[in-house]
Amino acid sequence: MTNSILKDGERIDQLFSTDVKIIQNKAVFSYSVDSVLLSRFPKFPKEGLIVDLCSGNGAVGLFASTATKAKIVEIELQDRLADMAQRSIILNNLEDQITMVKDDLAHLLDHVPRGKVDLILCNPPYFKVTETSRKNASEHYLLARHEIATNLAEICKVSQQALKSNGRLAMVHRPDRLIEIIETMTRFHLAPKRLQLVYPKLGKEANMVLIEAIKDGSTEGLKFLPALIVHNEDGSYTEEVFEIYHGS
Amino acid sequence: MTNSILKDGERIDQLFSTDVKIIQNKAVFSYSVDSVLLSRFPKFPKEGLIVDLCSGNGAVGLFASTATKAKIVEIELQDRLADMAQRSIILNNLEDQITMVKDDLAHLLDHVPRGKVDLILCNPPYFKVTETSRKNASEHYLLARHEIATNLAEICKVSQQALKSNGRLAMVHRPDRLIEIIETMTRFHLAPKRLQLVYPKLGKEANMVLIEAIKDGSTEGLKFLPALIVHNEDGSYTEEVFEIYHGS
Repeated sequence: MTNSILKDGERIDQLFSTDVKIIQNKAVFSYSVDSVLLSRFPKFPKEGLIVDLCSGNGAVGLFASTATKAKIVEIELQDRLADMAQRSIILNNLEDQITMVKDDLAHLLDHVPRGKVDLILCNPPYFKVTETSRKNASEHYLLARHEIATNLAEICKVSQQALKSNGRLAMVHRPDRLIEIIETMTRFHLAPKRLQLVYPKLGKEANMVLIEAIKDGSTEGLKFLPALIVHNEDGSYTEEVFEIYHGS
Repeated sequence: MTNSILKDGERIDQLFSTDVKIIQNKAVFSYSVDSVLLSRFPKFPKEGLIVDLCSGNGAVGLFASTATKAKIVEIELQDRLADMAQRSIILNNLEDQITMVKDDLAHLLDHVPRGKVDLILCNPPYFKVTETSRKNASEHYLLARHEIATNLAEICKVSQQALKSNGRLAMVHRPDRLIEIIETMTRFHLAPKRLQLVYPKLGKEANMVLIEAIKDGSTEGLKFLPALIVHNEDGSYTEEVFEIYHGS
């Protein structure tokens, strides 16, 4: 059965410290440390409704399933990635908890009720579209990495519509866009409350930021969580990241 | 001579890794690690004009004098603190480089030409005024710590007026007010470009943020410098902070 679920070039990976398996294809899309850290960042509701926007091959939602009994809706625009995610859901017998939607996230409200979502997770495209964006070889990576099919404002707008009051949006992004992220979130009444800077090593500039915003929250009382350092001086994972990947 | 320059309760401290001496009075005001880190944070112009807003007993400007040949204007509202700073300037024979102005920073343009300042340093009052602010025992600490005599918007407004285009404002503040700081800076056309989170220890939440903004800069390309960790696990200073205090 395991073999028949795979298509050309795909393989099954164990999803870091859990029993969850995930179908990957390096030529198309693989989850990276960003997804891993995002899926460990928010305070998960015990039950309710979670949405994973820009879900790719489903890593964030699949891993989140181990932390909550909430229903999880994954939404992904790309056929090929949505299809991989759907087969990973079946592979893990998670059909009762996770639903894969192949659609533009702008149509999220066709799939979840307005103002009823407890938590939205999002690992969005990081880069603005530029002249050189189009030179990227793979269309799948291009859409996943560049703001071609969606952008920050659309993500915040649809999050504001779908979240309940005091519901939360958790996002991973690049620190160089933090001013725009904060401005866009607050414009859509999403108040950033928890930020965590991710540094590749001690002594290196931050290259990722994790942000949790609360719908209709006040803009006061922002917390910067402890610095998350990914690698030790010798290149090995720090204890904190090792535990996320492999369990403590 | 050294003794006659001191008033009741005052003492002379060596200003960390430099030869600079500073007159302090614990009952009135002492500089803290915030000032030390601020005075090491910006890229100093080699010459030109630097202003230190909310200069207190002058620590930031005195230390800055070792990093640049620029003229430095310190402005402080409180008589007692301005007087201590003035005597420290004399004690160090720095009258040619540093000028102490005892005035409200709102009147900065009475003392420096509009649009001509290269760098503004500011260690402002961190706290909003609340009912409980007034209970703080010392009036000197009260004014230094709470937004009674000035506030973020006024600091950014006067900085915008005094700075030349592409001049820089470097500030130390509390991370819980970062959203308001970014919003206020950008409203006054001061674009944050370099941020550094300061963590008391690895594994602890950030409790300080250093920010450098450029007048008339774009709001893209924000950099988060390496995490600045103040203490080791055992409470001693980390190598980085030890070197700032004592020299390498």
